[in-house]
Formats: sequence, C-alpha cells, structure tokens
Amino acid sequence: MQFNFQNPTRINFGAGKLSELGTEAGTYGKKALLVTGGGSVKRNGTFDRALESLKAAGVSAVECAGVEPNPRLSTVLRGAQIARDEGCDVVVALGGGSTMDAAKAMAAMVFYEGEPWDMFFSSEGTFIPPTKALPIITVPTLAATGSEMNNGAVITNEETTEKSFVNAPVLFPKVAIVDPELTVTVPKDQTAYGVCDLITHVTEGYFNGVDGTPLQDRFAEGVIQTAMEWGPKAVADGNDLEARAQVQWASVVALNGWVQVGTSAGYPVHMIEHTLSAHHDVAHAAGLAVVNPSWMRFAARKRPERFARFAERVLGVERNGKTDEDAAREGIDRFEAFLRSIGCPTHLSELGIGDELIERYAEDTLRIINDGKGNLPARPPMSREDIIEVLRGAL
Amino acid sequence: MQFNFQNPTRINFGAGKLSELGTEAGTYGKKALLVTGGGSVKRNGTFDRALESLKAAGVSAVECAGVEPNPRLSTVLRGAQIARDEGCDVVVALGGGSTMDAAKAMAAMVFYEGEPWDMFFSSEGTFIPPTKALPIITVPTLAATGSEMNNGAVITNEETTEKSFVNAPVLFPKVAIVDPELTVTVPKDQTAYGVCDLITHVTEGYFNGVDGTPLQDRFAEGVIQTAMEWGPKAVADGNDLEARAQVQWASVVALNGWVQVGTSAGYPVHMIEHTLSAHHDVAHAAGLAVVNPSWMRFAARKRPERFARFAERVLGVERNGKTDEDAAREGIDRFEAFLRSIGCPTHLSELGIGDELIERYAEDTLRIINDGKGNLPARPPMSREDIIEVLRGAL
Repeated sequence: MQFNFQNPTRINFGAGKLSELGTEAGTYGKKALLVTGGGSVKRNGTFDRALESLKAAGVSAVECAGVEPNPRLSTVLRGAQIARDEGCDVVVALGGGSTMDAAKAMAAMVFYEGEPWDMFFSSEGTFIPPTKALPIITVPTLAATGSEMNNGAVITNEETTEKSFVNAPVLFPKVAIVDPELTVTVPKDQTAYGVCDLITHVTEGYFNGVDGTPLQDRFAEGVIQTAMEWGPKAVADGNDLEARAQVQWASVVALNGWVQVGTSAGYPVHMIEHTLSAHHDVAHAAGLAVVNPSWMRFAARKRPERFARFAERVLGVERNGKTDEDAAREGIDRFEAFLRSIGCPTHLSELGIGDELIERYAEDTLRIINDGKGNLPARPPMSREDIIEVLRGAL
Repeated sequence: MQFNFQNPTRINFGAGKLSELGTEAGTYGKKALLVTGGGSVKRNGTFDRALESLKAAGVSAVECAGVEPNPRLSTVLRGAQIARDEGCDVVVALGGGSTMDAAKAMAAMVFYEGEPWDMFFSSEGTFIPPTKALPIITVPTLAATGSEMNNGAVITNEETTEKSFVNAPVLFPKVAIVDPELTVTVPKDQTAYGVCDLITHVTEGYFNGVDGTPLQDRFAEGVIQTAMEWGPKAVADGNDLEARAQVQWASVVALNGWVQVGTSAGYPVHMIEHTLSAHHDVAHAAGLAVVNPSWMRFAARKRPERFARFAERVLGVERNGKTDEDAAREGIDRFEAFLRSIGCPTHLSELGIGDELIERYAEDTLRIINDGKGNLPARPPMSREDIIEVLRGAL
C-alpha cells in the first residue's frame, strides 16, 4: 500500500447550513458566478435563499443557469466566458453532480490557455490538466455524486460524443456546504439513482483495487451498508430528513477519497456507463445500475472469493458450506434485487437502449481510456470483447 | 448530525517514503528544526537517513533532541527558543506521539505572545489557542497516536502536574510522511501499546458521541476490527512489514477525524489517563488499557444496547437470546482479554499505582476539563465519584 493523499476541502454539513454560503463566499471576493441546472432550485426556493445569504454578506451574484444533465463542454465555455466578462471572484455551484462538475470545469477554464477539450483525460489525445482555477464552493441539492468534496469533473464533448473526466488539485472546492434540507424535494427516482450512484463509487474501488487494503475494505462495506439501510427510507419518504442526511453523508464519503485511498482502482463500470450516457443522455446512475450487476457477474468469474466476501459482509449471505462461486452469485443477485427494490432499472432495454451500437460503445470507451495494451483498466483488465459481453449481459 | 470539518494535511504513506522528507521540507524553507525523542532514531539509522534526505534537498537541520514521554512544557519552550535563535523555517518531528506533539507545540510557541501554559485547554484557567505556527512536517516512528495527521498536541506542565491539550487549525501538519519501515524496530510492548492507543481513540468517539452517526459507527468498527486483526501479527513479528503498515494506517485514521467527525464526543478515558501519567509518568497507552475496560463497565450500565452492538459487530459475540447487559459484559470481557493477549496491562497495580491518590486523580481531571456543572464531558457525564469508581474498578 503506497499513496500520497490530500483532501483540503472543508465541509459544512447539516440541516440549515445553506445560510453559511454568504459568509464563506465573502472570504473569496465580492462577486460570485452562481451556476445552476434546470431550474428546480428556483421552484423550491433554494435559489432565493442562496442569493439572500450571498447578499447579506455583500456578495453579488451573476447566474450561469441551465447546466444540463451530462454537462457539455459548450456549457463550460459559456460559464467561463461569463466569469471572465463579469470579473467573478468565486464560483458557486448550486445543484446536482452535473452542475457541480460544470462549475468546477468553468472555474479552471477561466484561466485555461490550451484547447478546451485537452483539459479532459484521453488515452489517445492530448491531456493537459488545469493548474489554476477560481475558488469553488459547492452546494449540492442531490445526494449522489460526491463531486462536492473531491477534485474531479466529468464533461461531455457533444461534438465528438465523448464523455471524459479531469482530476486536478486546483479543482478541490474550498468549501462544500452540504445541507440535507435541500434534498427533501428530490423525486423518488432521482433519490434512488443517487443511492445507486454512491454505492457504485464504492464498489468500483472495492472490486478493482489492489490487494492489501483491509481498512479501506471495511470502510467501503460500511458506506454500502449505510446506504442500503437508509437509502430505502429516503426513497419511501422524501421528507425523512434523518434518512436524507445519512444518505447524503454516505454520498460525500463515497467519493471524497477516504474509501478509495491507496486502492489504485480503475472505474470500469463508470467508464462504460459514460459512453452510454454520452450517446443516449440517460441518467448517469440509471446507467450504472444497469451495467454494475452485469459487470459484477463478469468479474466474479475471475475472483469469486472477493465477491463472496461482499456477499457475506454486506449482503448478509450465510455461507453454510456454499462455494465462493455460489456465495458470490447469491450476493450479486441480492444486490441487483436491492437496486430494483428502490426503483432502479437493471436492463438496457429499460433505458431504451438496444444492441445496435454495442461494439461502438466498447470502442468509444477504450478510446477515452485504455492501458496501452487496448484494455480498460479494471480487475481483470477488460478487452473490447469483455465490454461487449458485459453490455450484452445487461440487455 | 451537524459539523464543520477540514483536515488539510497531506499524507505520503508507504515503505520508503522517508526519502521524500527533504523535498517536502524544501518547499517550506532552507533550515529545519529537527525534533527527536530519546535516541532510538539514532540507534536504528532513521536519523541519518532523515538528515541525508534533507541535505540532498538543500535543507540544513538544527536538532532539538531529548523530547521525553509525556512531553513537558519546558521542552516545548526549549525547542521554540532554538527555532527562534536559529531562524528555522520549518519544524520536522521525527519520533513517536510525544515528539510530534512537542514539535507541533514548539512550532506555535515560536510566535506565541501569551503565558505559555495559556496555549493549552483549561476549564478553570485561561485558554488562548495559537493562531500562527511554523510549517510542521511529521515523520512518525511508532504507530499509535495519530498525531501525525491531526491538529492536536498533549503537553504536561511539570510545575503544576497538569497534563492538557490544544487543538488549533494552525497545528495541522503540512505533510505527514508515514513510512511503516520506520516502525519495524519498535519493541513488543510499545507495539501493543500503540494498538491499544489507536483502538481507544476510536472507542471514545464510538461510545461517547451523539446518536445518529451510523456511518461513523461503521468506520469505527472497521478501524477496531482491522487493529484487532493485524495488531497481534505486528506484536508477534515486528518485521512483518505488512502488519506494521496495516496497523500504522489504522492508527492514522483512528485520529485524523474521519471516524470522529460529527460525533461531538468527549474523551473521558483519555482525560482520566492524562492525570495518571501526569502523576506517574506511565506510558500513555498502558494507562488507557487499564482505564478503558473499567470505564466501559461503568458506561455500559447506562447504555447496555450500545455496548451490546460493540460486542456483536466487533467482538463477534453471538446474541442467542442474551440480554443487552449480558452481551455487553461478554464483549467487554473479550475486549479486555484481547488487550491482555497482546501484552497490555489492565490493572493499576501493574503500573505500580495504588489507591492512595485516587481522589486527587479525579479532582485533577475535573480541573483540566469539566462541563461547568462539575462533570467530566462523557456519555454519561462523570462526576468526581464516577471517576473514583472507574479507577477503583481498575485497581
């Protein structure tokens, strides 16, 4: 186990914390670029409360509205242009994962001098990560992505139908204001997707990481158990603030690095899903719910003992003399049943996706990221044919 | 659950990481105050390797040697004076918890303008935390304290026989260089004490925290399980680098805030032990091993269900219709037996401490910290008589 790790983001967590936005933003300047999504924050009053908090602290706001799901490079460029034109001192993201990812990319794009798409990872193109960004404050309105407390962003290039990512130290938010009250109006399906999203962040590291990380394993199991305990309560009753808080805290920890540190894991399920949502604009976590169980069945063939442990420790499968293979199968079945029980799709057909482009998905995925030998970094590494097999298994 | 949390310390973890010391220190200046303890780092070659790394990066070092166990205020003043006289740019701690705590306090004392003892917490005196410190780099040579990646320091005032603590944002180390190779020469007893220390850091938050932190509970259980799995291996074979690494990583996480965040817990076992080691100069973790089981039996009377969960989830106690009280008792017995199995004392008599000063220990503890109503902050809050009862239970 070898790693260098740092996460300098401060987190202000709890019901009512939105009121701290102004004071926090005021630390960084007098004018904020306020990045929002499709408009739900305006309908439910969150936008007005955010503005009020900023105003009370003497911070004016210029809005960049309309960040779409699977946010686009053109949106990032639009936001960066507003920030430059208006002389913004700080970028505030008020929304879900897409809004936060776009806001982070905007904050860096303000100073970026290369070709914009070069800011995002590519195995076959140019990749020049950003080295400077405006201060970023994240205010998530959805428990899912973990983007509020990490240094990553996922952006879609609509011209090339590529969806890629960037991680860079300058993209760590200065502060994440995580207020579970802001999530009580999230509808059932989005709540369920969020639970799936956070669990998938954890399963990726748990199954694809190096050996010899027993503490991280326990942490990963703890996050998944917490999400499986509290997620269904948040889906059943959106106004259950306690459930909303527990799910949101789990979603933060699922991708702020505490669980993944030192695991050096690939993210094959995410990478495959990114291609699907680049082509079809499906909800990211709905895509994850479809791909993950099929991927697990594929990967369990190589390493049944790992999936048997998952079955025992997380899904409560009792061994009673079962082989690793049988225990692993039972665990994955239970996991898939859990996803269905909260309302997630688990088949591509439910997303309106057929097998017409399956080879293209595999090839696009490998174009974004491969290990130099033509395989997707994962455990085991995945060839084009492996990706096709996993997708066929999810039809 | 409400909290604001930040831990900006970078951690460079892994065998061989000591070689990164020079480069890291060079980021902060050209002259380091190198703080060390009783000399083991010189006998085992770590000191020379540290100097070599600093020299290669163009950083000269001035030594402040001889930090004692339960480090003293006079030592802190001595180190701060050297740093001022020599114009040091950065403080490097190379040693165990005492060395790191003293180094952190020195880094702040360099700029501290008040009465030195006012820097440390007191319920009945003055407490003015530091607001400025030299950059700090920690290089732990023992897996125990967690001081390498947090903002706390515990110091003894030898004139008043008080042992107190300080937590302040300026005390976060810039970098913690955590190299398990440096711990392979730690003797069996110190290794066992380290395991006890890290476990006690976690049990304090687990048993004294607020309700409604299920994810933190899972993390706490995971740290204890990892320490109980790998600790005995590190005690049995000091050269087992894998065991050393797992124990050391657990010790970092046990007190870097990831487990305690949002729990708002008191540290009654630590506070009681601090008084013991202020009077008797016993090894801190040996004191913890004595106090913790007796404290658990006391606290379990008020909240048996919590201790029953600990018994089930961490100690593997099977319920089979047992009452919470019975399960709790069995769990605590097993925990105490674990401490004994790795070589920790569990009775005051083993430390050479009798009952002569028991009332004084209770009163001294409450003088350092109380809730304003004369009780030690804990769950349940502890009166003078409660502390005496716990200490009598440990005789």
